[in-house]
Amino acid sequence: MTPTAETRRDIARAVEEGFKAQLDFTRQLVGFRSERGEEHAVQDFLFRALGERGYARDRFAMDRQAIESHPGGSPWSDTHSEAPIVVGIHRPREETGRSLILQSHLDVVPAGPASMWQSPPYEARIEGDWMYGRGAADMKAGAAANIFALDALGRIGLQPAATVYVQSVVEEESTGNGALMTHLRGYRADAVLIPEPEDEMLVRANTGVVWFQVEVSGLPVHVRDMGSGTNAIDAAYRLIGALRDLEARWNEAKAGHPHFEHLDHPINLNIGKIEGGDWASSVPCWCRIDCRIAIYPGTDAGEAAREIRQCVEGFSRTDPYLSNNPPKVTFNGFHAEGYVLEPGSEAEAVLGRAHEETFGAALKSFTTPGYLDTRVYALYDRVPALCYGPVSRNIHGFDECVSLSSVKRITTAMALFVAEWCGLEAVEGS
Amino acid sequence: MTPTAETRRDIARAVEEGFKAQLDFTRQLVGFRSERGEEHAVQDFLFRALGERGYARDRFAMDRQAIESHPGGSPWSDTHSEAPIVVGIHRPREETGRSLILQSHLDVVPAGPASMWQSPPYEARIEGDWMYGRGAADMKAGAAANIFALDALGRIGLQPAATVYVQSVVEEESTGNGALMTHLRGYRADAVLIPEPEDEMLVRANTGVVWFQVEVSGLPVHVRDMGSGTNAIDAAYRLIGALRDLEARWNEAKAGHPHFEHLDHPINLNIGKIEGGDWASSVPCWCRIDCRIAIYPGTDAGEAAREIRQCVEGFSRTDPYLSNNPPKVTFNGFHAEGYVLEPGSEAEAVLGRAHEETFGAALKSFTTPGYLDTRVYALYDRVPALCYGPVSRNIHGFDECVSLSSVKRITTAMALFVAEWCGLEAVEGS
Repeated sequence: MTPTAETRRDIARAVEEGFKAQLDFTRQLVGFRSERGEEHAVQDFLFRALGERGYARDRFAMDRQAIESHPGGSPWSDTHSEAPIVVGIHRPREETGRSLILQSHLDVVPAGPASMWQSPPYEARIEGDWMYGRGAADMKAGAAANIFALDALGRIGLQPAATVYVQSVVEEESTGNGALMTHLRGYRADAVLIPEPEDEMLVRANTGVVWFQVEVSGLPVHVRDMGSGTNAIDAAYRLIGALRDLEARWNEAKAGHPHFEHLDHPINLNIGKIEGGDWASSVPCWCRIDCRIAIYPGTDAGEAAREIRQCVEGFSRTDPYLSNNPPKVTFNGFHAEGYVLEPGSEAEAVLGRAHEETFGAALKSFTTPGYLDTRVYALYDRVPALCYGPVSRNIHGFDECVSLSSVKRITTAMALFVAEWCGLEAVEGS
Repeated sequence: MTPTAETRRDIARAVEEGFKAQLDFTRQLVGFRSERGEEHAVQDFLFRALGERGYARDRFAMDRQAIESHPGGSPWSDTHSEAPIVVGIHRPREETGRSLILQSHLDVVPAGPASMWQSPPYEARIEGDWMYGRGAADMKAGAAANIFALDALGRIGLQPAATVYVQSVVEEESTGNGALMTHLRGYRADAVLIPEPEDEMLVRANTGVVWFQVEVSGLPVHVRDMGSGTNAIDAAYRLIGALRDLEARWNEAKAGHPHFEHLDHPINLNIGKIEGGDWASSVPCWCRIDCRIAIYPGTDAGEAAREIRQCVEGFSRTDPYLSNNPPKVTFNGFHAEGYVLEPGSEAEAVLGRAHEETFGAALKSFTTPGYLDTRVYALYDRVPALCYGPVSRNIHGFDECVSLSSVKRITTAMALFVAEWCGLEAVEGS
């Protein structure tokens, strides 16, 4: 199935020729402010782009009931996105190769205070080798690469000799329900590739993620009587201490996890948001923290949630204030398990060859301590799930950017991977 | 100057007769939601009430420049009230007695979550001896008592034989600039009485108060790279620890302060409000805390502010994150010193007699660790400043309420105090 050396050179050249258009497309994607719940327009833009290229298309809503009934589904909340999921479908003239899903997500994390950016986060800016903008790296460059890797084949009169689904989802940054929804919709393939910004490496293993909110409330008093009152902000901080103990215990347990035991601190608890109290001179009667913690592959998310709840409840029983004002724990986002990409799959070997041909060096793999949509395909489809993508800086931070030379090399490697994994056939009429 | 026993009995009866109307008036005051900046309507209501009673009136705005130039002025902020100050002026036919200011404030602290109240905070509710509502005790009952104590004298054909200013201010809960503004406007008298809810006792000494905000900000990163990033919420909590050390040092210094050394914890630092971060899965890049701390009488507010700033800066230099991201300290409210009511004044003796006659027990005094507007008169007019008022529960809390029987007794004692302090003359034509 391996394309000839000449075809491989043609593919690389075709990626090069299309790269200016690919950058324009990426820039357009960055121009959509697609924070959680705001991805409608960018998904429709992608839907049109797939239509212009002749893909069959499917656009569908989340099925809340189906998602919440699935063990990998994350709970709903008021902020859950209602934007559609978009799938472009390539059907070969003759299905001779291995099928493939190329997935991306177009939701982005909040830009944060605009003043901390050197230029507006939703206006892509190129400076040297870097394209700046919220989502430029995570992962609008990857979304464009999915489409332009296939475009490159078409440019030389070729197409995959197998079914390819180009899937664009949302909710990757908050629940993972978008990728799960494509699974629930019934899409399946022999492998999946997601070009997240992974520094030109392959993700060998990653953690699951659980989101939760803890709300403390109790009676405020005049600040002159503070001793007799309660202070929800201090109580929240005591609770954070108990949660940090849980984090430490989970990190100590890394010994039993082969892809994690070499990491200093594989389990990160992030207190991402805090709000409490009404003003300086009243003792605060409420405080809310929004938290995210990682879990090892193989750890059931429901079990992790129970441990978190027990941690909060157990500590609260020992705390004079919290025992009288039990905090409320809500699981309001990610409820997702991690996965391991077991070495030795044919898909990985094919990607390894494509990478080595493009980069002149062997493909490295590594462990990431964050959520990835690949978990859906690894855990529930049980197919090789390859997360592999360009070099980036400051994803989720200010001045997020992606290396353009890296995007070009990754796109080339992806096109070569598709060519060998799916096989090639001539485009009808060419 | 002491009124006869018969007149004193008549005064007590007149308070009794007017008490139903006084409760209605108090209930109307509570009905105005008069949180900071929202006191326009209630101040106009009081202005009309003074007009109906024939007082000469003065209604005026804050003079920001004059306030900020005064050592007792607190800095402006976006949330500073623009509601007017209202003064009703009684002028006797013949000025034979000692003049008096009766002051109140009609701003209230935020009601907080309505769900924590047994009934809506801005609908006064009477149950047994208690009137419930935000501001019922602090201090709309006192504002009504000022007017109805004078009304009681009028009901028996008498009036003070000296100038009395009935002053209604705002900003008592956040800066103290309202009371200061009456001073800057030029109002002066031989004594002042403010019927704050003081459990039927006289305030002997109180603390000053300083408000400040500390803002921490720094670069966020993807939560998977937490180790290399910064966490503004954790940094804010480390700063709170340093501020708690400052609080402990100030409490240790109580030995040199005669009215405070018997208190367990005279200096309270309150972290009243906290806000930080954008969502669970981004490392928080900003966090803001709103704080209030007390200072001993005799401590210069500017000096206290410098110590607070030094505490924040000094700790930040020792903290790897904060030394690279110096926090911003803003003084955005109270910048007010405490005072001591030196024992032995004639005004206190007169109030003591009025209290003893009404309550059948000696007037007690105590120290309060919170801000009071009486400081303006004590510090800058240097006249006896009497803070004395009814029994309350949960001021600044939920289900704030004031004892109605206590309000009646206090109003009686106030009317007797006015009668002896100012002397009495017949109302013209009666």
